[in-house]
Amino acid sequence: MRDPRFDILFEAVQIGPHTARNRFYQTPHCNGMGNLRPQAHAAMRGVKAEGGWAVVNTEHCSVHPSGDLMPEVLQMLWDDGDIPPLALMVDAVHEHGSLAGVQLAYPAYYNANRLTRDVPLGPMDRPVSGHHPIQVRAMDKQDIRNLLGWWKAAANRARKAGFDILNVDANFSTIAFQFLSPRNQRTDEYGGSLKNRIRLLKELIEVTREGGSDQCAVSVRLIVDELFGNLGLRAPDEGIEAIGMLAELPDLWDLVIGTWADDSPTSRFAPENDHEPFMVGVKAVTTKPVIGVGRFTSPDTMASLIRRGVLDMIGAARPSIADPFLPKKIEEGRYEDIRECIGCNICVSSHFAMTNLRCTQNPTMGEEWRRGWHPERIAPKKQDKSVLVVGGGPAGLECARALGERGYRVTLAERETKLGGRVTLEGELPGLREWLRVRDWRVTQLNKLANVEVYVGSELTAADVAEFDPDHVVIATGSHWRADGIGRASHLPLKMATAMRVFTPDDIMRGVSPKGRITVYDDDHYYMGSVIAEKLALEGNDVTLITPASDVSSFSINTLENIRVARRLFDRNVKMITHSSLVEGKKDTVLVGDVRTGARAEYSADALVLVTSRLPNSQLFHTVSSHYGHTEGNPKVSRIGDCNAPAAIYAAVYSGHRFAEEFDVDTPLLRRERIDLIKSGAIADC
Amino acid sequence: MRDPRFDILFEAVQIGPHTARNRFYQTPHCNGMGNLRPQAHAAMRGVKAEGGWAVVNTEHCSVHPSGDLMPEVLQMLWDDGDIPPLALMVDAVHEHGSLAGVQLAYPAYYNANRLTRDVPLGPMDRPVSGHHPIQVRAMDKQDIRNLLGWWKAAANRARKAGFDILNVDANFSTIAFQFLSPRNQRTDEYGGSLKNRIRLLKELIEVTREGGSDQCAVSVRLIVDELFGNLGLRAPDEGIEAIGMLAELPDLWDLVIGTWADDSPTSRFAPENDHEPFMVGVKAVTTKPVIGVGRFTSPDTMASLIRRGVLDMIGAARPSIADPFLPKKIEEGRYEDIRECIGCNICVSSHFAMTNLRCTQNPTMGEEWRRGWHPERIAPKKQDKSVLVVGGGPAGLECARALGERGYRVTLAERETKLGGRVTLEGELPGLREWLRVRDWRVTQLNKLANVEVYVGSELTAADVAEFDPDHVVIATGSHWRADGIGRASHLPLKMATAMRVFTPDDIMRGVSPKGRITVYDDDHYYMGSVIAEKLALEGNDVTLITPASDVSSFSINTLENIRVARRLFDRNVKMITHSSLVEGKKDTVLVGDVRTGARAEYSADALVLVTSRLPNSQLFHTVSSHYGHTEGNPKVSRIGDCNAPAAIYAAVYSGHRFAEEFDVDTPLLRRERIDLIKSGAIADC
Repeated sequence: MRDPRFDILFEAVQIGPHTARNRFYQTPHCNGMGNLRPQAHAAMRGVKAEGGWAVVNTEHCSVHPSGDLMPEVLQMLWDDGDIPPLALMVDAVHEHGSLAGVQLAYPAYYNANRLTRDVPLGPMDRPVSGHHPIQVRAMDKQDIRNLLGWWKAAANRARKAGFDILNVDANFSTIAFQFLSPRNQRTDEYGGSLKNRIRLLKELIEVTREGGSDQCAVSVRLIVDELFGNLGLRAPDEGIEAIGMLAELPDLWDLVIGTWADDSPTSRFAPENDHEPFMVGVKAVTTKPVIGVGRFTSPDTMASLIRRGVLDMIGAARPSIADPFLPKKIEEGRYEDIRECIGCNICVSSHFAMTNLRCTQNPTMGEEWRRGWHPERIAPKKQDKSVLVVGGGPAGLECARALGERGYRVTLAERETKLGGRVTLEGELPGLREWLRVRDWRVTQLNKLANVEVYVGSELTAADVAEFDPDHVVIATGSHWRADGIGRASHLPLKMATAMRVFTPDDIMRGVSPKGRITVYDDDHYYMGSVIAEKLALEGNDVTLITPASDVSSFSINTLENIRVARRLFDRNVKMITHSSLVEGKKDTVLVGDVRTGARAEYSADALVLVTSRLPNSQLFHTVSSHYGHTEGNPKVSRIGDCNAPAAIYAAVYSGHRFAEEFDVDTPLLRRERIDLIKSGAIADC
Repeated sequence: MRDPRFDILFEAVQIGPHTARNRFYQTPHCNGMGNLRPQAHAAMRGVKAEGGWAVVNTEHCSVHPSGDLMPEVLQMLWDDGDIPPLALMVDAVHEHGSLAGVQLAYPAYYNANRLTRDVPLGPMDRPVSGHHPIQVRAMDKQDIRNLLGWWKAAANRARKAGFDILNVDANFSTIAFQFLSPRNQRTDEYGGSLKNRIRLLKELIEVTREGGSDQCAVSVRLIVDELFGNLGLRAPDEGIEAIGMLAELPDLWDLVIGTWADDSPTSRFAPENDHEPFMVGVKAVTTKPVIGVGRFTSPDTMASLIRRGVLDMIGAARPSIADPFLPKKIEEGRYEDIRECIGCNICVSSHFAMTNLRCTQNPTMGEEWRRGWHPERIAPKKQDKSVLVVGGGPAGLECARALGERGYRVTLAERETKLGGRVTLEGELPGLREWLRVRDWRVTQLNKLANVEVYVGSELTAADVAEFDPDHVVIATGSHWRADGIGRASHLPLKMATAMRVFTPDDIMRGVSPKGRITVYDDDHYYMGSVIAEKLALEGNDVTLITPASDVSSFSINTLENIRVARRLFDRNVKMITHSSLVEGKKDTVLVGDVRTGARAEYSADALVLVTSRLPNSQLFHTVSSHYGHTEGNPKVSRIGDCNAPAAIYAAVYSGHRFAEEFDVDTPLLRRERIDLIKSGAIADC
């Protein structure tokens, strides 16, 4: 039963002509499906509505070909042909009684119009961001009139698609915000004073209202603080003032801060509800519902924000990805069932990979349509079978849990005394504590399953497995970091003096603590190199991080963390050396080569930590496989997770889940979206 | 009439069961359309066949979902649903009497399987390239058997699609080559000796033959030299030996070198026919036709290679993009009409932008289907009109030429005594001489058009234009480099001491020659910063290139030049400082800030060259527009090219061409490919 203090979260909220059934608002978020995979997109949004989000939004929806962000996978309403794919999503959301919103947008400076090849437009003549060799043209009055016309036409199409809420996007990358920013130095009535700079946003709201007629609510998604120092819009002065100027014009205010990286920090760098300081004073200047985000997973935090009058609705993107059923679980008082977002931003990285959204906590995300997966339901077993899962890391835990949900008799054996595998180890590294939620949610769920037995401190040999002799064996024994230097930069072992003290992340995580001048060589490029450097620096060492990449932790560009990583290392006095691959470890130096020029350099080092790549712990798999007859394709033995192919944690969870979904299924579903060759007359129907 | 010495190029070549009508072979190349834009892809390939290429190939065509290179836009034959889009291309090629080839491929190390989420496979356990956090799993025997089965099924589908030639891709990024490479350290019969390492390629050829049955020829695209030093396959020993081992197994050998960056260097770094040294000895070990590439545009070079027995067919990707009608023009003796590739690799950059292939020389490339453009034909004028084009740079030249082809009365006025605008200036910078072809081809064509008058040394004022009073005015007056520091890193002018000598690329290109310690500040990120630095270093100065980007000339990553740029600057003793934005120019130093950490540093400088961004030369446009009544949307005055929005040269040419194509056209064609929602049952036919 729900605690009455959370009842406030289930009050209805009026948004223009529509009523949201509760206070849960899924803010717009990218998903790598968009217009390119509309059926996958619709199914994903539908699951959100089913899970209790009263409002479910699209992502960025471009209103015109001259606002083309390709190759990013987003939405568009450039012509009537874009209505049917979005109508699919509206129908899926309506089916579960929620309101559907569309984020109407026209980018500025962020679009190189690579697909359409139109000239990009914006407030001033300036290059597009990124490094594409093209500049934005400063809009003249006719350009502005054109934009308002395009926008209204798109709003009209959105109404035809059935959307309830039309959102005017004034996020960082949009034309509306780039006009509003103090760096808009136009000298006409669209630049200079705040009143002039906000004129375009006001006009966009007006044409949206016209396009939506009285059928649609109009919302605004606005940056309240640009986090750009004294060169940017700031909440305490112009941010709040801007909202005040247009206070009652839209039906709802949805507020964000800074760039995407500012607005969506990872848990390594920011806690839940870190936006609240920027929201102070907003509700004083408007009577319309106010929405904010903050990676909310705690019902207490949510209820407090409503009760204290900071927000009217709980905005969420990432928590709704990790758990589409978060509202329903709070509604039903099942708090411990919430699959809390760990704040790793792997979801964001899938946007940059232009492929279906993925999530460390929720392996079904992005798979709703193409594989038919659901975050809360899984097909029951087809026949009674026993499965032994060896290894209780992220892959093994998820596999055991999902097989257990299906009704199989599952035994999970973990060598260590604690479950969690690498998650338990890595969760102790600086900044990664929230990652333990991957383990904790699964352990909680496993405890509810009577058909799953869990043994810790139980290292199984091949003989043990043979004696146990289940119907199926799943090996999930993880991986270990290589100590030979093989990775991306070197495909062969590196030359290493015996006098050089060489460690791997496994050593450091297990408590080995080298002292002095330490080189961390990062040829892995995700978080491990930088958190190991951070840990060793915190322990008082003189740390140098060397990487062949152009940036430290370069993959973290895709999780929006890259600048924060560099800043943190700088704050910890870690020296950062890029573009350099390790050539040789000598007695008390490391020799590196510039990956571009070959120029050599040598750095003093008392110890060297190699963060390059990993080797699967696959020996048990091979032994058990050969015991049962042959090595692969044997339906009796499988390997999952890092023991199959080392990867990030999200891949391990996915691997475990996929095994469980596809176990005993002859032909697993994998649907693909294809280009229509028939309607265009290219080929006859066949 | 054709010179008889080129007759040899038009001899037929037998390829297995098929006959190529001449020796022109369009090698596989990416195009940003692929499976995502199959109709656009088919139309583009069809134009190649129409232009005389006897064999027209697809790009990389993946045989299985576990070989998924998304988000790169390529081909795939994962299931029968992939046959119809490829059959479109085959039909388009056959329509013009050419043979259609498909590049069957299975990547290794280069695919993170981001879309399909399958585990990547390869010869050894090692991370995928790029920085995606996932590793390849070393294939076991069952994996290899699976691969051969998948490959044969794909070959079978290719046959059903109608392909004449099935190509076994053993390019750098493929499984076939990664097994063949000496860095394959497997200990089973697929690793170690060359005989073992080539086993997989041999088996792939065999299953391709089976899949294609006797209807299809089988070709191999192989790296003859890996350019990886003593760690890689080298032509003189194992490269030639490998070909000899399988000499007669395929019907054709198509040879490449190294990585894509090695195989397709820009004209800045390599001349035509730079592969020839690696081809020595190939024809001695096989009787099958041998194909090589070398950015061939000279009929003399081509004929010589055939005559000297180096090659049997002239392979080309980039020259076939710049001029799809290259073979036909040689055949007809119209050598001066060949639109020669300038070797800028903008074509490659469109692959990385995942959008339709584009070309500096050929603005119709990638627009064949969606805009209905053709490299050799353009719609005649609808009515008689006079057009004045002001400015004879790349945009103005192409606009005048294409309008002239349409039959309009065109006057082109150029201020300088030489035509070409920025191309003429930039063509004098180190390494950019071939770019002059952009000007030269257009001048040659203009000279053939009786309805186009060209005036050089003719700077027009607004009053001149008004007096001339044509039916339409096109302003193409280009742009100039800013001297205030505004660019991507700074949106406001930079603080600059009056004592600091500040220059722009325009100064340097016009002959200003600063001396001493010179800082080139590159916030443009394409070629200009590095060629200016190179020029100043060649003149004997002590040059430092500072950039806010993580790499020097970072956009050149997309043109495959980045490493070569850095090496050349290093060879010229140019110091390279990355991650640093210019904060202030002082008396004889520049103050910079680390873009990640904010840490400040100061460097000595006698002079500073600002390569940040450009301003359109739009004054004439505004004056003439206001003379004719209003500023924009006026059908009487238009602006094109850099004068509209400064961008790379390819964009200027495109802008001029687009204006000419769309002039006097009410609704220009812009077709889009859409996802099929009907066949999948998502929506009813409507």
